[in-house]
Amino acid sequence: MAGSDSDLQTRELLCELLRGFYLRGWVSGTGGGICALDPDGNMLLAPTGVHKERIQPPDFFVIDPRDGSVVRPAADPDLKPSECNAIFRAAIGSRGAGSVMHSHALSSVLAADLAILADHIAINGFEMLKGIRGLTNEDRHLIPVITNTPREFELVDQVEAALKDDRFAGAFAILVRDHGAYIWGADLWEAKRHAEVYHFLFEATVARAKR
Amino acid sequence: MAGSDSDLQTRELLCELLRGFYLRGWVSGTGGGICALDPDGNMLLAPTGVHKERIQPPDFFVIDPRDGSVVRPAADPDLKPSECNAIFRAAIGSRGAGSVMHSHALSSVLAADLAILADHIAINGFEMLKGIRGLTNEDRHLIPVITNTPREFELVDQVEAALKDDRFAGAFAILVRDHGAYIWGADLWEAKRHAEVYHFLFEATVARAKR
Amino acid sequence: MAGSDSDLQTRELLCELLRGFYLRGWVSGTGGGICALDPDGNMLLAPTGVHKERIQPPDFFVIDPRDGSVVRPAADPDLKPSECNAIFRAAIGSRGAGSVMHSHALSSVLAADLAILADHIAINGFEMLKGIRGLTNEDRHLIPVITNTPREFELVDQVEAALKDDRFAGAFAILVRDHGAYIWGADLWEAKRHAEVYHFLFEATVARAKR
Amino acid sequence: MAGSDSDLQTRELLCELLRGFYLRGWVSGTGGGICALDPDGNMLLAPTGVHKERIQPPDFFVIDPRDGSVVRPAADPDLKPSECNAIFRAAIGSRGAGSVMHSHALSSVLAADLAILADHIAINGFEMLKGIRGLTNEDRHLIPVITNTPREFELVDQVEAALKDDRFAGAFAILVRDHGAYIWGADLWEAKRHAEVYHFLFEATVARAKR
Repeated sequence: MAGSDSDLQTRELLCELLRGFYLRGWVSGTGGGICALDPDGNMLLAPTGVHKERIQPPDFFVIDPRDGSVVRPAADPDLKPSECNAIFRAAIGSRGAGSVMHSHALSSVLAADLAILADHIAINGFEMLKGIRGLTNEDRHLIPVITNTPREFELVDQVEAALKDDRFAGAFAILVRDHGAYIWGADLWEAKRHAEVYHFLFEATVARAKR
Repeated sequence: MAGSDSDLQTRELLCELLRGFYLRGWVSGTGGGICALDPDGNMLLAPTGVHKERIQPPDFFVIDPRDGSVVRPAADPDLKPSECNAIFRAAIGSRGAGSVMHSHALSSVLAADLAILADHIAINGFEMLKGIRGLTNEDRHLIPVITNTPREFELVDQVEAALKDDRFAGAFAILVRDHGAYIWGADLWEAKRHAEVYHFLFEATVARAKR
Repeated sequence: MAGSDSDLQTRELLCELLRGFYLRGWVSGTGGGICALDPDGNMLLAPTGVHKERIQPPDFFVIDPRDGSVVRPAADPDLKPSECNAIFRAAIGSRGAGSVMHSHALSSVLAADLAILADHIAINGFEMLKGIRGLTNEDRHLIPVITNTPREFELVDQVEAALKDDRFAGAFAILVRDHGAYIWGADLWEAKRHAEVYHFLFEATVARAKR
Repeated sequence: MAGSDSDLQTRELLCELLRGFYLRGWVSGTGGGICALDPDGNMLLAPTGVHKERIQPPDFFVIDPRDGSVVRPAADPDLKPSECNAIFRAAIGSRGAGSVMHSHALSSVLAADLAILADHIAINGFEMLKGIRGLTNEDRHLIPVITNTPREFELVDQVEAALKDDRFAGAFAILVRDHGAYIWGADLWEAKRHAEVYHFLFEATVARAKR
């Protein structure tokens, strides 16, 4: 069944969020991406190599989150699924994510730069930490920083290791050096909130590091 | 009586201002908030934990500003009133505010950072000071800076102390370290003007401090 | 005769430009302003103390540019004409301006800050200088910087002195320390172009001064 | 034949992209420009000296890309073709570009400033490099930096030399000191992607140089 009302609403919301992310410079130059589980528990995955702010509801791939296989391709046969597939599924599988976004924001790159010799950055001293599920404004929040690879799917081992690392059990984001961030939540609305909160924290941490 | 014309207009304007604040990054990640007195003298209060740019007119709580009790809840039973309740009422009660906004702007956090050992920041040398009721561009304007707490309602004692402090009698804003700002005015239009002026002054003061 | 087609078009364009200026942060907090000559040679002047992005065509005052007298007030009797009246008329009278805008942009304040001991800033080394009528990209362009006063009309003497100063004969802008800028052109379109070019130059000069 | 469906779509897309570029500050103050090949292989060229965000489909000149002659002028006889004509044709002729944009972004000027004694800047260490056709994120990417001239057409010799220089064979952009950048792609969509990627890289490189 190609699209219940709720399925269409999810696709429309994905498109709307991508337009909002684009306006903020998080998914420019065809970079970045997004996914969300549909009502059947499959993953709606944006295509690769397209201008993300122009994606339409029929452009998503329906992916089985257990093995990454394509349940139903995008309507346009020229489209290919995003290389984020395996990483998005890792967050869904290990953390119960219902939606994951991938940012190419400059603030995420500059925040990862702060982890000069470390495998993470630590953020504390911001009320906005409360915007991350489970945190208080008194927490010291560790975000893993992994190393970029030539192909996106090659990040999976590092992503999975970070997701299993107890130090990062409270994180809903992974920074990739020179690249960007993966940010997730239980559903699209939490993923949106977490995306806004983490980008605030990236900008704020970079700004304070300059003092 | 659920909404005279004027009541609806106030609710619509609150929603419009929240959308404008969101575009500027003042209420991202569900943070921040707003209230205004309705024609009956009750406080229309935005709900907590929701994406502020998506709030609709029926989503506001009607609060008795004298005691904070809920006169009429939001139409959606899942919504809860903002934790700003007590702080907003303090500004209404002590200062005759008709509208109060709560900002999570990065510029407000960085401006509060400038008060390293002090309980305030002092701003002078800006024409924009005239945009604050009662000030000239020759005034030295003191804005109180209070310390953040785990829960928002715990800020009330510090807020009330700042509101009673003679040094801050001319202020229509309180900065909260690591958190943001509360900004008010006699009505929604003055609260909007003050919000724009104070955010300009925060950005300008931070920029000049970098020289 | 309350408004030929062309008069209405001018008023609508003034409103549109104010909305664009507002989005860039040039006229926030009710600050800033604009005027343009109407087809009869009178000055259409925005009101003072209002949110500039919300001004509507009937809100302008029709002013005699020779003496500043009100030929026809704004439709709303509560509105008052902008304090820029005398300054705008000085640019119209001395320089043949057909439109003048007044900016409260932070970049204009920070650019004026660069004139520490001088009465001007000098800008060179930018292709964008060509966007100012009469200039090449090889010119060294002097912009006068005057000192702010408690009331806006008190700036007139300094404005008139700057307009008569041969060093500034090529300038279509005056910076006011701690305050902003006046920028003009032969008509609304040139004033818009000059506003965009000068704000670019302010930002660029401030950015280069930080290196 | 004044405009097949496809021709009109190209003109409308050119206008849409100019509005997007304008909102980002890449073509302010009438600066900057764009061209694209139409279905007949002629170059649609934006006019000079106009507010780029207001250009309409009939405003483009149809230019023979082989010799720069005007095949069909803009509908409005007051319009003149952009001075970018010869430079755009050089990129079309030497590199097979199907669309070229010219940016006046501040980030492009500040990026060119980094080439103090060199005739290029080198960019590496960014995933976004993948957004440039043919590159990986492990490449060190050289972008030529040429010297500004009084008239835009005088840049042609330097542009042609840069296009022939083997060091820059992988570049889809040329920076012009104090001026901006020319950025191209095989078609409008690739030119848009390259424009977004290069501006990200300019901003990112300038930000990292400040550390």
